[in-house]
Amino acid sequence: EAARGAETARALVLRLHYADQADLVQSLPAEDRRALIGALKGAFDPEILPELDDYVRDEVIETLGYQDLAQALAELDSDDALYVVAQLDEAEQAAVLERLPVATRALIEQGLSLPEYSAGRLMQRELVAVPAYWSVGETLDYLRSAPRLPEDFHEIYVVDPRHRPVGQLRLSTLLRSQRSIRLRDIMDAEMPPLSTTADQGEVARLFRDRNLMSAPVIDVSGRLVGRITVDDVLDVIEEEAEDDMLRLAGVAEVDLYRAVVDTVKARASWLGVNLITAILASLVIGLFEATLQSIVALAVLMPIVASMGGNAGTQALTVAVRSLATKELTPSNAWRIIGKEFLVGILNGVVFAVLIGAIAWIWFDRPEIGLIIAAAMVINLAVAGLSGIVIPLALERMRIDPAIASAVFLTTITDVVGFFAFLGLASLFLMP
Amino acid sequence: EAARGAETARALVLRLHYADQADLVQSLPAEDRRALIGALKGAFDPEILPELDDYVRDEVIETLGYQDLAQALAELDSDDALYVVAQLDEAEQAAVLERLPVATRALIEQGLSLPEYSAGRLMQRELVAVPAYWSVGETLDYLRSAPRLPEDFHEIYVVDPRHRPVGQLRLSTLLRSQRSIRLRDIMDAEMPPLSTTADQGEVARLFRDRNLMSAPVIDVSGRLVGRITVDDVLDVIEEEAEDDMLRLAGVAEVDLYRAVVDTVKARASWLGVNLITAILASLVIGLFEATLQSIVALAVLMPIVASMGGNAGTQALTVAVRSLATKELTPSNAWRIIGKEFLVGILNGVVFAVLIGAIAWIWFDRPEIGLIIAAAMVINLAVAGLSGIVIPLALERMRIDPAIASAVFLTTITDVVGFFAFLGLASLFLMP
Repeated sequence: EAARGAETARALVLRLHYADQADLVQSLPAEDRRALIGALKGAFDPEILPELDDYVRDEVIETLGYQDLAQALAELDSDDALYVVAQLDEAEQAAVLERLPVATRALIEQGLSLPEYSAGRLMQRELVAVPAYWSVGETLDYLRSAPRLPEDFHEIYVVDPRHRPVGQLRLSTLLRSQRSIRLRDIMDAEMPPLSTTADQGEVARLFRDRNLMSAPVIDVSGRLVGRITVDDVLDVIEEEAEDDMLRLAGVAEVDLYRAVVDTVKARASWLGVNLITAILASLVIGLFEATLQSIVALAVLMPIVASMGGNAGTQALTVAVRSLATKELTPSNAWRIIGKEFLVGILNGVVFAVLIGAIAWIWFDRPEIGLIIAAAMVINLAVAGLSGIVIPLALERMRIDPAIASAVFLTTITDVVGFFAFLGLASLFLMP
Repeated sequence: EAARGAETARALVLRLHYADQADLVQSLPAEDRRALIGALKGAFDPEILPELDDYVRDEVIETLGYQDLAQALAELDSDDALYVVAQLDEAEQAAVLERLPVATRALIEQGLSLPEYSAGRLMQRELVAVPAYWSVGETLDYLRSAPRLPEDFHEIYVVDPRHRPVGQLRLSTLLRSQRSIRLRDIMDAEMPPLSTTADQGEVARLFRDRNLMSAPVIDVSGRLVGRITVDDVLDVIEEEAEDDMLRLAGVAEVDLYRAVVDTVKARASWLGVNLITAILASLVIGLFEATLQSIVALAVLMPIVASMGGNAGTQALTVAVRSLATKELTPSNAWRIIGKEFLVGILNGVVFAVLIGAIAWIWFDRPEIGLIIAAAMVINLAVAGLSGIVIPLALERMRIDPAIASAVFLTTITDVVGFFAFLGLASLFLMP
């Protein structure tokens, strides 16, 4: 009965597109997932592997075993196989590599030697390169009859005798040109060749800014070794924006499928840092115990100033972190934007100072408390605006990822300044 | 002298790639920007326009005037021109449209009639479509000699007599097939045709999941009306991830180049909502005025519990919002993830309860305060984990964008529960 169920499941799943198969595997609870992968063995579509979430892939690979994994990898494109192997730990990598065909193994080992998140890790090695002195006719004949060409290519690269790229040519241009024309006369020589060690973020930005469909990749000696196509860049673009968002919130990655204990550990480090921040704010409050004891209304109102500062600062911070990532915020316009955020902070500070001042006055029927919370609000929102832009700029200058560290510094500042300004002013003016 | 300066600037700028020209225009202060655009008039590269930030583009268009704008638009691809016109307000649209050539104008008006953020707004109308009964040879001859084909195409669409797409074919496949073969025998019939009204987020997800290079777009009667290529999708993917990040932080968009007063207004609405939240938290604190007055240590410690809850909840929330956007979090696995986040909250609650309990005990030398803050911490972190996942799921179900509204609900809950649990337990056990 169970065997027949497995057979039916298998037949149903194999009818799906590999992306949908991956989605399905992912959305199952762990046991069902193992059962399904077990049932699929043999008919397993290797294309699923690069599509899976890291945590799920680890599980699937465990179920498959190294032998089946090696077989699946050998069927993948070089860039996809490299991507899957790169996610394994060293012992696993060794176990899989020794089961791969020599040629595939050499390509992957070469890829692994390149820095993570580099153009060399993204590129495909399969490409078409032809010499610049060829004519359109010769090239078309070659493309038609050459035995080993990539399955899919949208442009050909034109190289010099040392295999350095000197231009590229779209197939559509080639098709519509006269057979006698030389490639060098119609090729596009303005393509930007990428180095294998270029950061993937830079690569993505270049593709986005220039609306590229593909770009050649060269090694240190300038030789053409691969090509990056725009579809490889899609994932990078999404990840870079997503990573900023997650880091700002204190999570390193989407941990939806991660085991509970690992998730607890990963998130605890951020909460630990925040605990220190919160205690720091409490120490500031502790300075004003006497004031709080005599005017308890202050204890009731004090979180408002700190919270508004945190929110206003986060607005400025988020825009700054994103603009730094897209290189819209640069040293050339930083001062202008700092001035702007300070001004925005002051103006919103005034708006909300009036509001909260009136509310506090009415609530506790003491106009002086309204005045004091209003003053603290202007101070804290101005500081928040300034911190929201200066902190990420300073971190970026110190080569620290602003998305990771900015939020902690910001809330520390807005909490400390918020409590200190409010309670300090109150002690100064309301205490005998 | 000024004229010579403008001449030099113009010559220098025109040597740059249009993307770099756009960057330069963007990074200048407003006056210099106007001066540069003035100097570039006539030699102005229309490709700059779609690359600019919305606020900067408005300024540039103001400097250009409608006549020059119309001229620039006529030179752009249909999708780029549509994109620029769509960002204008209605009066401006009318003024520009009436200055455009009739054919361009008709295309843009048709595009404007489609919903915003739809496949129809993204697509290019320029494409190559051929009948299924043609042979490879006929098709190649047609591509070589047809007078009006798009400048750049990577695949051709195969259509039936009613111009409905039935397959597509890469140029590389076409080139490498024998001339006598019929297209229907080698075409890829598995392409997913998109409707003009499909949401751009769905389009982007499809391209990402299926690793597509392009997809045909059909109108309501199923006729092929355009194509979307993967480079059009790059911007969408980046925007969708970026939008979630910005909305969570309470900013609608990257407002780096927006005027100060407009920025203040846009950000104030979010701060206003947060003010209400903060006041709600203060009302909760107000319930315990008597307790606070008699044990001032509580006022010192109380922000810690609320702040830790806010941070733990934001971690869960951010992962949930992102996973909803990428459709990794779905009704089929929602319960499992809810259980997980609750458990993660409890476990991290216990970890930090022990820590803060010990610290509070030592700080105020009162073990009972340590016990109470520890209990409140467990409660608030469990509630935070649960809220972090349930709030976005609930909003999504009510068809409200979880990225916009989640954070407010979350901090309201973690503040209210945090203060209520801590001060409530203290009143219960420490007050006579």
